[in-house]
Amino acid sequence: MIKEAILHNMTREFVYSIGANSYMIKIRTKANDMVIVNLYYYNKYHNVIKDHKVHTVRMTKVATDELFDYYEAIVNVNHITTKYYFELIDGSGDYIYYANYRFLNEPSKDDSYSFDFPIQAKMEDAPSYIDWMADGIVYQIFPDRYYRGDNYIPNKSHTKWSASPKWNSIYGGTIKGITQKLDHIKDLGATIIYLTPIFESPSNHKYNTTDYMKLDPDFGTKEDFKEFVDTAHSKGIKVILDGVFNHSGEDFFPFKDLLKNGQKSDYKDWFFPFSFPVKRIHGIKPNYQSFSYFGGMPKLNTMNQDVQKYFTDMIDYWMTNFNVDGWGLDVADEVSHEFWTVFRKAVKKNKKDAPLIGEIWYDSRDWLQGNEFDCVMNYQFYRCVEQFIARGTMTVSEFVSNLEFVRGNTNYNAYRMLWNLIDSHDCPRFITCAGDDVRKLKLAALLQFTFTGTPMIYYGDEVGMKGKGDPDCRRGMIWDSDKVDTDVLNYYKSLTKLRHSHPCLRRGEFHLVYKDDDKQVLVYKKVYEDETLLVAINNSDTEVTLTSLTNKINMIDNQVMDGVLPPFTGVIMQLHNKL
Amino acid sequence: MIKEAILHNMTREFVYSIGANSYMIKIRTKANDMVIVNLYYYNKYHNVIKDHKVHTVRMTKVATDELFDYYEAIVNVNHITTKYYFELIDGSGDYIYYANYRFLNEPSKDDSYSFDFPIQAKMEDAPSYIDWMADGIVYQIFPDRYYRGDNYIPNKSHTKWSASPKWNSIYGGTIKGITQKLDHIKDLGATIIYLTPIFESPSNHKYNTTDYMKLDPDFGTKEDFKEFVDTAHSKGIKVILDGVFNHSGEDFFPFKDLLKNGQKSDYKDWFFPFSFPVKRIHGIKPNYQSFSYFGGMPKLNTMNQDVQKYFTDMIDYWMTNFNVDGWGLDVADEVSHEFWTVFRKAVKKNKKDAPLIGEIWYDSRDWLQGNEFDCVMNYQFYRCVEQFIARGTMTVSEFVSNLEFVRGNTNYNAYRMLWNLIDSHDCPRFITCAGDDVRKLKLAALLQFTFTGTPMIYYGDEVGMKGKGDPDCRRGMIWDSDKVDTDVLNYYKSLTKLRHSHPCLRRGEFHLVYKDDDKQVLVYKKVYEDETLLVAINNSDTEVTLTSLTNKINMIDNQVMDGVLPPFTGVIMQLHNKL
Repeated sequence: MIKEAILHNMTREFVYSIGANSYMIKIRTKANDMVIVNLYYYNKYHNVIKDHKVHTVRMTKVATDELFDYYEAIVNVNHITTKYYFELIDGSGDYIYYANYRFLNEPSKDDSYSFDFPIQAKMEDAPSYIDWMADGIVYQIFPDRYYRGDNYIPNKSHTKWSASPKWNSIYGGTIKGITQKLDHIKDLGATIIYLTPIFESPSNHKYNTTDYMKLDPDFGTKEDFKEFVDTAHSKGIKVILDGVFNHSGEDFFPFKDLLKNGQKSDYKDWFFPFSFPVKRIHGIKPNYQSFSYFGGMPKLNTMNQDVQKYFTDMIDYWMTNFNVDGWGLDVADEVSHEFWTVFRKAVKKNKKDAPLIGEIWYDSRDWLQGNEFDCVMNYQFYRCVEQFIARGTMTVSEFVSNLEFVRGNTNYNAYRMLWNLIDSHDCPRFITCAGDDVRKLKLAALLQFTFTGTPMIYYGDEVGMKGKGDPDCRRGMIWDSDKVDTDVLNYYKSLTKLRHSHPCLRRGEFHLVYKDDDKQVLVYKKVYEDETLLVAINNSDTEVTLTSLTNKINMIDNQVMDGVLPPFTGVIMQLHNKL
Repeated sequence: MIKEAILHNMTREFVYSIGANSYMIKIRTKANDMVIVNLYYYNKYHNVIKDHKVHTVRMTKVATDELFDYYEAIVNVNHITTKYYFELIDGSGDYIYYANYRFLNEPSKDDSYSFDFPIQAKMEDAPSYIDWMADGIVYQIFPDRYYRGDNYIPNKSHTKWSASPKWNSIYGGTIKGITQKLDHIKDLGATIIYLTPIFESPSNHKYNTTDYMKLDPDFGTKEDFKEFVDTAHSKGIKVILDGVFNHSGEDFFPFKDLLKNGQKSDYKDWFFPFSFPVKRIHGIKPNYQSFSYFGGMPKLNTMNQDVQKYFTDMIDYWMTNFNVDGWGLDVADEVSHEFWTVFRKAVKKNKKDAPLIGEIWYDSRDWLQGNEFDCVMNYQFYRCVEQFIARGTMTVSEFVSNLEFVRGNTNYNAYRMLWNLIDSHDCPRFITCAGDDVRKLKLAALLQFTFTGTPMIYYGDEVGMKGKGDPDCRRGMIWDSDKVDTDVLNYYKSLTKLRHSHPCLRRGEFHLVYKDDDKQVLVYKKVYEDETLLVAINNSDTEVTLTSLTNKINMIDNQVMDGVLPPFTGVIMQLHNKL
């Protein structure tokens, strides 16, 4: 028994609300050290109301990474404050109690030897679990590159649709173009469209905003946008916008005022000037704080209450008038925490079930305490799939361990909605990383659609689009039926269809069944209500006989897996049936 | 090397601002496992600005508890985002790198194998370090029991000043009474007065508020209060009030409205009624949520924005009109986190250096992330001193280990201002716990005044007042010179004088030098700028020869400690000199 590995804090990371009178309690132990972990809990004010009952629940091991096991229990209580402690029993039968940061040989009758959590301090904590997010499929669109709608005005400065993008290429995609292509998205099976920025901006990516209250004229009119959201909604598709609040563009009116009026500007405290006069430069290291030292993206002071007011008004504008469903949040980790708590309230006031999804590339727990985001883009998943499948530089064990780390250390509500991506506008296309091996793309997609969380398809992946890193990963969408990879498209459609028709795929959690680092084989299980699904992945260039696995796996109901898994393929099996 | 003991998260617990461009980074390891821990850090955007320099700093071991060592380093950077990783070297020379939650044998050139922290997400994080708090001495007063001022109107229902208190006794102390006794407080050396609640309430303790905007008429007029604060300020004494926001009293106007109008009340959402009509009861388990199930203390819905507005207005009222200096916060752990973030902003808007001190009896890290409290009442210290000195049920090793746990797990700014108490209105007087042994009281006070943090004297301790648990610990203050324990009073005065004249006592940190569980002897060191102080504590009933310790302790500059420490006494020694 390794006491040093045991970790539990009376914080929102380890104890939090997951619904009315329902609380999650977590504890971490050394991997494979304990065989039983029990939670004991009772009413703090037991003496006042003569309720001395101590409840017990056996905790569930929900994840194991390289070093640790993670145990969870959900308790349903309506105490004012709940006192609790843990009983840990290892394989040799040794046991110990962990109670208010002390290790005891016997539970203490002294209440000061219990942890506690008060209800109200936890009530509004949890990131919101939002059904349509957890059950949904996200489709990310870079609007300039999606489709030139009927409203497109030809412009000879625009790049040819099929040409390779340069950093400053304009292709001429419009919002109306997306509206016209909603049937493709609907047929694909996506239920949530996530648009990279659409507000007025001189660039093609529009991450340097000129006017947050205005649709970029290149993309169309506000009527076009209204029509787009309404049509999407009529097809059962939600619309999530990308919010860039870390920095503006240099043509944002407050920044222009600062450039003009310097120290006397009313907007001086909206930014972080290092000296005066503030000089407009397009290169790096301007005399004001900026995103990534780029002059074109002056950093906003999101701790300033006027800035907060401007952006909460902006949220009201887009949510009230256009019925937007949620917000992705750019460079979310470089913005002040305070801003996000204010911003969250503004969003939830408009729509209680509107999600906030942060762009956080690494460990996100500091933003998932309940008062900031509901979930994040799962770039940890991206890195694992890229290394495991595309590049083949990660073993099955490492892959599982890395993803179990995320499971063990992420808020449960957030975890079930993480946006699992295999690429995006900020990284090379998966298929290109995988040396154009379509088998690997399909295998990665299979993993993505059968893992816990919400799959996110980057526009064009579904038709086999290729591309190296930015800007090459932002090519014009393939609409030419000769160029569409129909095999890939059909595979994606079959995955989305399976996901929609099997609650088990959406709501069952990943459970490791079998892994083989030599053969690069991974088998996992998803269980939800009456259904059990097995997923077998062959991530090697050698075929694998499924029956040979059956002998190694303690199969459910002695089910036999027959057939073979060709190189770089996977299969989803229903209990007794192959889907 | 025990990897499982190594703990660092990219959260506000482990990385936080402690001043302009100054950040604290912490890591935990197994106790006595590592000999060197180094922090490496560099600019995330090093490729953009061609600044590839990797800085190194050796981390300092700041605490060791039963299981763990705690290491800290302060880095001064103005990167947009700082990347960092740790190098850990154990006694056998084995080394390992800990980088973005992975253990590596060599540092990686891949930035994704570094932890990171963005500046703005950390900028406003830290609890405020407030000089006058860290350097101050707190004096807690229960106003009804302090002094009947000139404005006292005799009332035959009032309890005789020298009688034992019952739960509902009224003694008749007034605010004017405290003003008249400010010279006692000043002479004692206290610099901060902390008043238990003073707002209108039918009880003697006034934790069940009727009107938050009104001084209780029993205590005097608002003019009396204004005069009190002004006079205190003129004597260099700050005034901190006790804020009770978890619950009101049952005569609070919104609750009366709820009682009267039920479902139709405009204040229905200010409370948590279980059913209607809401019934006023004075016993336990009313049909609404309440503090500790008591009918007289209906729980406030502090997530309600109208409730938040009412209390931020209240803060403005007391801070603007009466120049109050800070707030102690009752039952702080049962109030919603959201309320505290709103409340903090309101307080800091009025006075940037106004502290928020939470009443949290156990681990407080969930409230010390920067957006809630600046520090807490150190009831963990109270429990340790009570068990170690008063009751003799804790060894020196346990005592040190328990307090080092607090050091290791508490925000650094907060830690240096924790209100170290040995008793309060909510627990028995220390001297009574100690079987009326004045030696133990003086020894506890010595510890309190030489430990890291802000000592808090509970009114009357300084004159040897006794008392069992509530209500007996709330007796009328002893003013009769025949009853004052002059020896104790002089001892307290000598401690406050030493603390004020030696920055080392206020700002030097506790460092263990020597401990002996058999002899119950503890020696610790405080170092600040040019001064080094040693404190030796003999917590046994046998005298200890200091020269015998000198042989065991690796003394600074071969200093000799001479003389003896009688049972239950301690001594403060300056380098080469006894103070």
